[in-house]
This record gives sequence, structure tokens and C-alpha cells, in this order.
Amino acid sequence: MELWFTEFHNENSKFSMKVKEHLLSVKSSFQKIDVLDTYEYGRVLVIDGFIMLTEKDEFIYHEMIVHVPMAVYPQARNILVIGGGDGGTLRELTKYPNIENIDFVEIDEMVVEISRDFFPFLHCGFEDNRINFYYEDGVKFVENKEDTYDLIIVDSTDPIGPGEGLFTEEFYKNAYRALKEDGILVNQCESAYFKEDRREFERAIGKLKRIFPKSYAYQANIPTYPSGHWLFGFASKKYDPVLDQKASQWGKYNIYTKYYNEKVHKGAFYLPTYIQNILDEA
Amino acid sequence: MELWFTEFHNENSKFSMKVKEHLLSVKSSFQKIDVLDTYEYGRVLVIDGFIMLTEKDEFIYHEMIVHVPMAVYPQARNILVIGGGDGGTLRELTKYPNIENIDFVEIDEMVVEISRDFFPFLHCGFEDNRINFYYEDGVKFVENKEDTYDLIIVDSTDPIGPGEGLFTEEFYKNAYRALKEDGILVNQCESAYFKEDRREFERAIGKLKRIFPKSYAYQANIPTYPSGHWLFGFASKKYDPVLDQKASQWGKYNIYTKYYNEKVHKGAFYLPTYIQNILDEA
Repeated sequence: MELWFTEFHNENSKFSMKVKEHLLSVKSSFQKIDVLDTYEYGRVLVIDGFIMLTEKDEFIYHEMIVHVPMAVYPQARNILVIGGGDGGTLRELTKYPNIENIDFVEIDEMVVEISRDFFPFLHCGFEDNRINFYYEDGVKFVENKEDTYDLIIVDSTDPIGPGEGLFTEEFYKNAYRALKEDGILVNQCESAYFKEDRREFERAIGKLKRIFPKSYAYQANIPTYPSGHWLFGFASKKYDPVLDQKASQWGKYNIYTKYYNEKVHKGAFYLPTYIQNILDEA
Repeated sequence: MELWFTEFHNENSKFSMKVKEHLLSVKSSFQKIDVLDTYEYGRVLVIDGFIMLTEKDEFIYHEMIVHVPMAVYPQARNILVIGGGDGGTLRELTKYPNIENIDFVEIDEMVVEISRDFFPFLHCGFEDNRINFYYEDGVKFVENKEDTYDLIIVDSTDPIGPGEGLFTEEFYKNAYRALKEDGILVNQCESAYFKEDRREFERAIGKLKRIFPKSYAYQANIPTYPSGHWLFGFASKKYDPVLDQKASQWGKYNIYTKYYNEKVHKGAFYLPTYIQNILDEA
């Protein structure tokens, strides 16, 4: 008896993995959450039918959303993380000894509990005592913040469902104000390959461009996301992500990474022409 | 009634696309060839059950296998192309006015005929009168060549079946001798994500390293290949692909590309740590 999980890119394209065991299926107040054990990808977290992460390649996403901004702003002390209840982003962030405070805002506490129960390689991120846990809506959380954070990481789901508010102009404006004068915001920014994803990328990056003086997109090869060619937004009040890349704590503290390195950092911003065009015209 | 084509990455992972029409299914002397018309990917060429190219993203593969070496060696005059009976590599190569001669060696003439009948956006590559057509085995073709070519492009299928000989040490040695003293060989070099592909990449790049003084791998985001993170070998007698990158004919003749640009060229060689490690230890 073969059990397969299928994720639909759209109605014409799909990706499937063979399942050893369907470990969990629950509905939180916000979303449907499944945990799978698979032969090729190990443990897989699925939310509302979409792959959030897999054991095999989550390191790529989490390294790129953390070490890229930290290499540009290594002196970052006060960080806000919105989303990422799985813990992977926190795991990477807490590798930096110089960070003093991490405000972690996750709307769905159940994701954190599930991470504790099923994803040991991720929930280790929660153990650090620099983290303050806020189980609330990140959109509301930033509404009253001003000049507070050096770095905001928006580690969200897709712009449909609970994550939708994290892609609005209002949220980006509040995040801008919540940042210090040289602060940086990075976010999960979809993809440019499938039409539906491309539209979301274009809209999100267009909003960031209107609000931040310096806005960029960077890329990573994440095979279990649709197309394998995933994008992040990098919105900055002051720093250029390539010109201001520093021999950072990543090198100084010998932080161990399996994907990220100083060259990959630069290459991430060297976008294929068709994606650069979308970025330029957004 | 829904018709889907499925490609298996291995027994635990697969990728499927919805089919409008199954246009062709034939067996040549060498391989089984199918042509599909699909909703998301347009026309798709399948050989022995594996996706060779799709209308949607073939430009990525063909641009990267041609414009990368041509930017390092823009004065290349005499080129050998082995494989690529679809015509896409020739289409990109013939954009360079300074190339004088292209020896095109394809073992399976039926692929060329099928390209002419079903892939107009590819077979335009065949129209150029600088091309000499050889319907023979590329492994044998190079056996008696010496100091002949500036560039050899090995645009092969996978190392199973007719393409197998193009991944052998003997072939690489003969190709080395067929190149001029500053010649370059580039090849389709599989991927590092799935264990089976990774082994092939490691073996091929290891052989190239033992034969050529300067051997590298470079990457491209090709969503319809397994993992979306595909690799090419760059084996050189003299030139470094990044340090010796020149403001080339690509810029000089305003060659139109949708993926390749001068920055992507550099970024292609900036490999993630886990892939760089495989390259270093191969």
C-alpha cells in the first residue's frame, strides 16, 4: 500500500512525495496543520495543504532568511521575528552571540507546540533565553512600535489565509516605523515562476519599493517550494545588501552553515534577467 | 477526463503536469521519444520517460550552457556541440556573429526531425549555414580530433542510456586533446540534491578535475529538472570562468537573453557550501 502526499502548484502542475506515516492532522484556530514522515524528505510540515518545510532542505530557507541580513547588519541587537513558529529562523538567529533580544510573534501557538513534539531539529531554536514569545497577530504587534528594531524578519506563510496581512502596505509602513533609522526588513517573498506566485511577488516587492528607500529581492534554491526558485525581499533604510556586506559574525564566530556562504550571499542578489525586470517594474 | 504525465525523481518523489495532448510517441534506434502539449509548460520533450526540456523554461538551460563559456572565451571560432538534437544550444550559439564553424554531433537523427516537426522555437537553430551536421556517436567523433576546437559543449541526456559514454574518463581525455591549448569544455552535469543525481555529478566532476587543470561547476535554476537546481561542468585548459569573464560579445552584439546576464554569470559559480564541498572532494 503506497501513500503519497501531493502539493498542487496550480491546477496543471503538482509535486508528490511518498509518505511513511501521516503523523498528525489537526485544525488550529487559524489553519489546518499536518505532519508527515516521508521517505525522501524526512519530516514535513504542511499547512492548509502547502509544504511549509521539509527536514531535507529547511536549512536552505532558514539560513538565507537569517544570515543574509545579519551579514549586512552584524551589529543588530534587537530583532523582531514574525511567523516561523517552527523555530528554524530562531535556531539560525540564536547562533549570533551579540544579539541581545528577539521578540518572536507567532499568531498560532499550536505551530510551536507541534514543532516541540515533531521537529527536534527546529525547536532547539526556542531554548534561548533572549527570546520573548508573543502569541498574537504580527500585523497588530507592530502597530504601536517605533524606532525599536534593527532587523525585522517576516517568516510568513503565503499571502492567503492568516499570512495575508503581512503582505499589506499598512503592515510594511508600520514595520518601517518600528525599525531604527538604519534598520532592515526581510521577508519570504514567493516566486516569479508560476503566474499566481509571480503576481504575489510583484505586489509585495512593489509595496516595499514604495516605502523603503532601498528595496531588493534575493533568491535561493529550495527544491520543495514551487519551482525550486524562491525569493526573499530585502528592504533597507540605509544599507545595500551587497556593497555593505561585511566580514561578519558569520565568519567571526565560525557559524556553521550548509548553504549560506559569503559568495552565495552576493550571488543571491544576482537575479536572472526576467526576475530583475519584474523587480525593476514593480 | 484528465491526463497527467509524471516524471519520477526516484521511487519516493515525483513531479506531474497536466497534458492537453500526447502529440507523439516513437522509438528511435536509441531511445523512446515522446512529445507532449501541456497546460503549464507548453510543448515538452520527453526521452525514456525523463523531461528533456519544456517550452516554458528551456531558455534557462540553453542560455546557461552557451553564454557562460562564450563570455569567458568570446574569441571562440570553432565549436563542437555533442547532443542537443532539439536545437536550443545551436539557437543560442548562432547568436554570435564571430563564430566561424560549429560541428554538431547528434547520435539520434530522429530527435532533430522531431524538433523540426514539433519545436519551432528550437529548430530555428538548425538554419545557420555555419553548422555541419554529423549523425554519429560523439564519443567516437572526438577519438581522432586534436587541437581543433575552442569550445566543446556536451549537451547530453543523463548518464544512463545513449548518453553514458559522454560521462567517461576516456571521452573527457579525448575531448581534452580535441581542444586547442586554451580550450574549454562545458557539460550538462546533473544535480547535487537527490542521492542518485549527486553521485553522477560527483563522478563526472571528479573525472574532469583529474584531466583539466581548472575545473569548476556552475548552477542554474531550471524548475522542470529534478530539484530545480541544476549543475554544469566547466573544464578549462587556461581560463578562470569568473576572473576571466570578459565584457563579451553578449554585451557587444546586444544578444538578447531572458535569464543570463553578467551578474548571473558570476553568481552561477557561487555554489552553496554543501555543493562546493562535493566539488572540492570529488
